[in-house]
Amino acid sequence: MKKNPVVAVVGATGAVGREMLKVLEQRDFPAKDVRAFASARSKGVKLPFKGGEIIVEELTEDSFKGIDLALFSAGGGVSKKFAPIAAEDGCVVVDNSSAWRMDDNVPLVVPEVNPEDLDWHKGIIANPNCSTIQMVVVLKPLHDVAKIKRVVVSTYQAVSGTGQKAIQELENQVRQIFNMKEVECKVYPHQIAFNCLPHIDVFLDNDYTKEEMKMVNETKKIMHAPEIKVTATTVRVPVFYGHSESVNIEFYNSISAKEARAILSQAPGVKVLDNPKESIYPLAIYAAGEDDTFVGRIREDDTVDNGLNLWIVADNLRKGAALNAVQIAEHLIIRELLR
Amino acid sequence: MKKNPVVAVVGATGAVGREMLKVLEQRDFPAKDVRAFASARSKGVKLPFKGGEIIVEELTEDSFKGIDLALFSAGGGVSKKFAPIAAEDGCVVVDNSSAWRMDDNVPLVVPEVNPEDLDWHKGIIANPNCSTIQMVVVLKPLHDVAKIKRVVVSTYQAVSGTGQKAIQELENQVRQIFNMKEVECKVYPHQIAFNCLPHIDVFLDNDYTKEEMKMVNETKKIMHAPEIKVTATTVRVPVFYGHSESVNIEFYNSISAKEARAILSQAPGVKVLDNPKESIYPLAIYAAGEDDTFVGRIREDDTVDNGLNLWIVADNLRKGAALNAVQIAEHLIIRELLR
Repeated sequence: MKKNPVVAVVGATGAVGREMLKVLEQRDFPAKDVRAFASARSKGVKLPFKGGEIIVEELTEDSFKGIDLALFSAGGGVSKKFAPIAAEDGCVVVDNSSAWRMDDNVPLVVPEVNPEDLDWHKGIIANPNCSTIQMVVVLKPLHDVAKIKRVVVSTYQAVSGTGQKAIQELENQVRQIFNMKEVECKVYPHQIAFNCLPHIDVFLDNDYTKEEMKMVNETKKIMHAPEIKVTATTVRVPVFYGHSESVNIEFYNSISAKEARAILSQAPGVKVLDNPKESIYPLAIYAAGEDDTFVGRIREDDTVDNGLNLWIVADNLRKGAALNAVQIAEHLIIRELLR
Repeated sequence: MKKNPVVAVVGATGAVGREMLKVLEQRDFPAKDVRAFASARSKGVKLPFKGGEIIVEELTEDSFKGIDLALFSAGGGVSKKFAPIAAEDGCVVVDNSSAWRMDDNVPLVVPEVNPEDLDWHKGIIANPNCSTIQMVVVLKPLHDVAKIKRVVVSTYQAVSGTGQKAIQELENQVRQIFNMKEVECKVYPHQIAFNCLPHIDVFLDNDYTKEEMKMVNETKKIMHAPEIKVTATTVRVPVFYGHSESVNIEFYNSISAKEARAILSQAPGVKVLDNPKESIYPLAIYAAGEDDTFVGRIREDDTVDNGLNLWIVADNLRKGAALNAVQIAEHLIIRELLR
């Protein structure tokens, strides 16, 4: 990776794409140039960047000539088709879709957890699922100390994880309810306003959702720990930004709540907010716009040997998507410089 | 208990008290008379009942003369003081507060689970916590078949569980946000609109909340199963009515998802809604106003021997409070008649 790559954001008009541009700007990413691509429908849209504007170009098979780094967030279909084309042209792809995550030839990376996997990429690097990223950032430092046996996780996921249209749907439904109008459901199969949907992504043959199995399988791959058992229930809640997670962990070795707090307060990308008596614990509304993954409600679970309960919250569009992708790109540059 | 008791609703102007009157009316409870009590502040308030009105009386130490049955939902302090006075006057108290639940001389009853405990009451019967009731209604029939070892539960609880003021607070905060005004927090320590609070009731010395420990301790007492291990994370979500729960269960004996579905579809007070491919699963907005406890997302958890994941939803003001209290009263009458 060049020190000053030409960067493309693919799917630039979506919720994650817009956040990618914002993160590139905020972190003053050393790009020689930043270009934005989307479908023909969005061609010509102007996106704000560093005081100016980027004009969205239509994504075609020729788009990647002269591009060094492409951050993809345009859905699995686009990634499946265009990431190999980009890689063929010598461009490194960081892909936010689920298309390549479980491919054995594609590293799945959270920089705080497995940066070493960046060394063996073949042109495509996968960005994990939002709910997985914030969980593994917290699991990894605890696993290193006490070895995780099993995780039971239930999520409270924001609508922005679904995209711009879902943000609009929650807002519209709230207005419809407050104005005594009929509620329209276009994005979700049921009303999301003032409701909780135990249904994220599609259902699989085992009656788990694809989102739930992402948390199971991606965790094992990122942490190089196929032996960690994970069971998940993923739930959409009427929150705009910020995913929350209730995480129960069983360890092989003893670990107290106090030890976990000490370990996590030193962990990269993690901030401990854990003073319940003062009503201090992680909250979606405060995590929104932040880079850290927040953890609190750290307490021992005495229903198993070596158990802990945790409450983990992060901005799903940032650490859960755009920020993690840009951090991967930053690590690629740094690792190249250090080589 | 008389066949046609004179009934008092204590705390009649609260969210649960109003629901108690509604349930008494809907079920055509065989009351000779229904009276409503509250604090001096609410004296004279008119509450609708059976096409007419009940005028709220001030609760005093003399209120229970001539009352056969009192349904209390006026907070722990009022119950602690007035329930023994009522019992002394020969009135049977069904108390919705947490004041008496763990008292060894007070039965804690969910009629579908432990109606036999109604036989040894000494004038006070405790109604369990809302999030506990809907869980044990589902756990009991499964426990009878496969013996439960451990439960990990995370809740998604509606603001109506806190009371009328919290319903108003969620509505107010949504309006404030949509009108670009500052959000006011009076009931909860943080904004509840578009947010999730991992904080219900007060924090205890073990860093669990009182709500979490209610789920642990009340479950054991109701089910006469002190050996069942329960660990809970209880979370308030921006939903008006209906508590949802993500429940992971480990059994001693084998039980498949199919078997669990068959058992639960025969269980009293339970309705199975479990056809994920058609987007059919329990939802808070549809549970609101209903008497049943709904269960779905029933699936095997292969991270332990004999594991299941479930999604349980009920109307927290009805089965979680008012309905369960009235059902207790109905059972008292029936058991007396059958004696």
